[in-house]
Amino acid sequence: MSAATPNPRIHKVALLGFGSVGSSVARVLCDSHPAALELTHVCNRNVARKQAAAASGCLPSSIRWTEDFEEVLASDADIVVEVIGGLAPAEDWVRRSLAGGKSVVTANKQLIARRGDVLIPLAHELGRHLLFGAAVAGGIPVISGLQQGLAGDELFKIHGILNGTCNFILSHIEQGASFAESLAEAQRLGYAEHDPTDDVDGYDAAAKLAILARVGLRSAVKFDEIACRSIRPIQAFDFEYAREMGCTIRQISRAERLGDALLAGVQPALVPLSSPLAQLEGGQNMVMATGRYGGDTVFAGHGAGGNPTAVAILSDVLAIVANPVPAVPGAPPVLRPANANFTSRYAIRLIVDDQPGIIVEVASILARHGISIDAILQKPGFSKAELPFMITLEPCAHSLMETALAEINKLSFVTQPALSLPLLEV
Amino acid sequence: MSAATPNPRIHKVALLGFGSVGSSVARVLCDSHPAALELTHVCNRNVARKQAAAASGCLPSSIRWTEDFEEVLASDADIVVEVIGGLAPAEDWVRRSLAGGKSVVTANKQLIARRGDVLIPLAHELGRHLLFGAAVAGGIPVISGLQQGLAGDELFKIHGILNGTCNFILSHIEQGASFAESLAEAQRLGYAEHDPTDDVDGYDAAAKLAILARVGLRSAVKFDEIACRSIRPIQAFDFEYAREMGCTIRQISRAERLGDALLAGVQPALVPLSSPLAQLEGGQNMVMATGRYGGDTVFAGHGAGGNPTAVAILSDVLAIVANPVPAVPGAPPVLRPANANFTSRYAIRLIVDDQPGIIVEVASILARHGISIDAILQKPGFSKAELPFMITLEPCAHSLMETALAEINKLSFVTQPALSLPLLEV
Repeated sequence: MSAATPNPRIHKVALLGFGSVGSSVARVLCDSHPAALELTHVCNRNVARKQAAAASGCLPSSIRWTEDFEEVLASDADIVVEVIGGLAPAEDWVRRSLAGGKSVVTANKQLIARRGDVLIPLAHELGRHLLFGAAVAGGIPVISGLQQGLAGDELFKIHGILNGTCNFILSHIEQGASFAESLAEAQRLGYAEHDPTDDVDGYDAAAKLAILARVGLRSAVKFDEIACRSIRPIQAFDFEYAREMGCTIRQISRAERLGDALLAGVQPALVPLSSPLAQLEGGQNMVMATGRYGGDTVFAGHGAGGNPTAVAILSDVLAIVANPVPAVPGAPPVLRPANANFTSRYAIRLIVDDQPGIIVEVASILARHGISIDAILQKPGFSKAELPFMITLEPCAHSLMETALAEINKLSFVTQPALSLPLLEV
Repeated sequence: MSAATPNPRIHKVALLGFGSVGSSVARVLCDSHPAALELTHVCNRNVARKQAAAASGCLPSSIRWTEDFEEVLASDADIVVEVIGGLAPAEDWVRRSLAGGKSVVTANKQLIARRGDVLIPLAHELGRHLLFGAAVAGGIPVISGLQQGLAGDELFKIHGILNGTCNFILSHIEQGASFAESLAEAQRLGYAEHDPTDDVDGYDAAAKLAILARVGLRSAVKFDEIACRSIRPIQAFDFEYAREMGCTIRQISRAERLGDALLAGVQPALVPLSSPLAQLEGGQNMVMATGRYGGDTVFAGHGAGGNPTAVAILSDVLAIVANPVPAVPGAPPVLRPANANFTSRYAIRLIVDDQPGIIVEVASILARHGISIDAILQKPGFSKAELPFMITLEPCAHSLMETALAEINKLSFVTQPALSLPLLEV
């Protein structure tokens, strides 16, 4: 055997993108100056303006600022850090960087969730790294935790709170505000974008869940195969009913093996107050991985922000420095999503124009579908014309419950579509 | 550049020790049969009895059972898994395995905490792996999380609940039992050993903290340089006072950079109920790492048990398979512990024979040392001859507070030595 030889070579890093995350990467890299790394290129549109803005910082004058990706590609940079976001031109630039013999570190969740099935094998074929620890849950080392730290387990379930914006909005509704007020507050504070669709309707979390399911559950799930349900219908009184059940409501991303298939979905769910998932603050993220041998393991921390994301990127860069040749890839992912047909306890929230016989009619429909009622909760103090109440069910399949719900929604006294919330057992 | 070549070679694993953890390693390895691994040797005293007990399991007949370590050393096993525990013969066998060209995976916290300063550089020199993810917090991937996942941050603080036995005992006292009753219950359930010293007096947690500080804070702290305070003085009424302050009491291990020095200690502490550390159940473990850029990151899960520990061991074994040649080591650890002189808010619990003028005398001593009182808490319902009350202090150095406490302990009305509890800000 041969002893490990210290490698004094400097690894040259090129940065594609100099927005919030890119400038954090540059600053942390230059602040903490790891001995083995040198930032040699920054590539961005309007690069003169970016460079001028950065000049007040500590970035060394040796950095080559350019608007031309071809210059990066032709350079001797070893590692390309892609923080442009989106698919174009990021996908093309990542492919060409890999083909040009460079390893790539990316924070781009859309790129990995949508094109990972092609790009990851491509990197393996070319003998280069394609690392994406920053694409999920920012600074929380969950990708390396699933890939290396829990490599010895057989994971079968992943639950997470992967979108800090939804966590903020739901916490705000919990304190009595409406959805619209809470969204406006999140936008005012810069937590939510002008068009909040990606966050509140679950697509942002679904992209992250697709990546976690690939890494942790060896699933080939495609981004758009993950069912998403919006948090928009959640109202303050839903939290009052949740508390009656010892729960709160959170946007939960979950994926679970079921034989050779994968169940995966993003939706608002009832979370027991005793669960770590119920205790997460504001913009933080949490991932809980469940294994056959090791049980539940929890990872939590800052899910977004320039500096935490920069930490995740630099950790990936340092992993490449430590092991320049990628490990032999494991078997390719195989699990495909069947659907989001989780069997759970569910709570159904109905809003009705109160009149005699409501419970009988609703209970009859549920009974006809073989669904057993666990309890009926009704709190005082609401208008009889818009009366909310909650029915909790014994465990049943999501599809069965939805079929019954479609019938219930047609009842004349139902004034708003019923809302169904799974009750997590974590 | 050259493409990564799939390496079909089988890595042969020898197991030293076949107790609870060792048999779990063998079972998980044979259950989940990773393609690249083969268990070839089991070495243990009374091996015939062990083999007979294991025969009902699924272990393949090809395994060579032996009582003779020399046979393992002479074999073609690539990876030696050491789960004997203790220093002798584990230390000698690990050294000789490394010298014999084998990589080593160990779950032995005493070995790494006491001899890591020698064994880790030795492994580097010999170009072999010495991995010890299972030595701290069982199945929680915190060592890989600190070493790889957070490599890009500059960590400066680690807090943890590293001993599940203490967490169980303190939770039991919280429900009204005495320390003696709670310890007896923990022993009855098999959570505490006949001699509970290592657990309740903090030495077990200190060994784990020494390893975390080495890995996460680049500290060369020695195991016996970590100050330990016992949880034995904690009584049920301490939790009543803690709740008045919005806190609970937990055995906390903490290490923190202070310039070029390290503060490190294991002690019972007041933990705000809002902290993740306050919410940990029974025998679970939690580590919170704080970085300059990424803020707090939390790792939690099963800190002990055969299967979770086996997962950590197998994850390390698979890391060796993925990268047979160890990465170039980083700079050696440098931080040395100054002491455990944390500056904190503290609460002092006094038990007195009640009489007029007590507050004046105690407050005078504190004032003379320049320590400001924040609040005085006294709950009704206690005997006047053994009256507990609590004084919370403005932030001050531990040493200053202890000096004042020594004087307070000499006051005639003080019936038991004062207990000091730092109030964590996490």
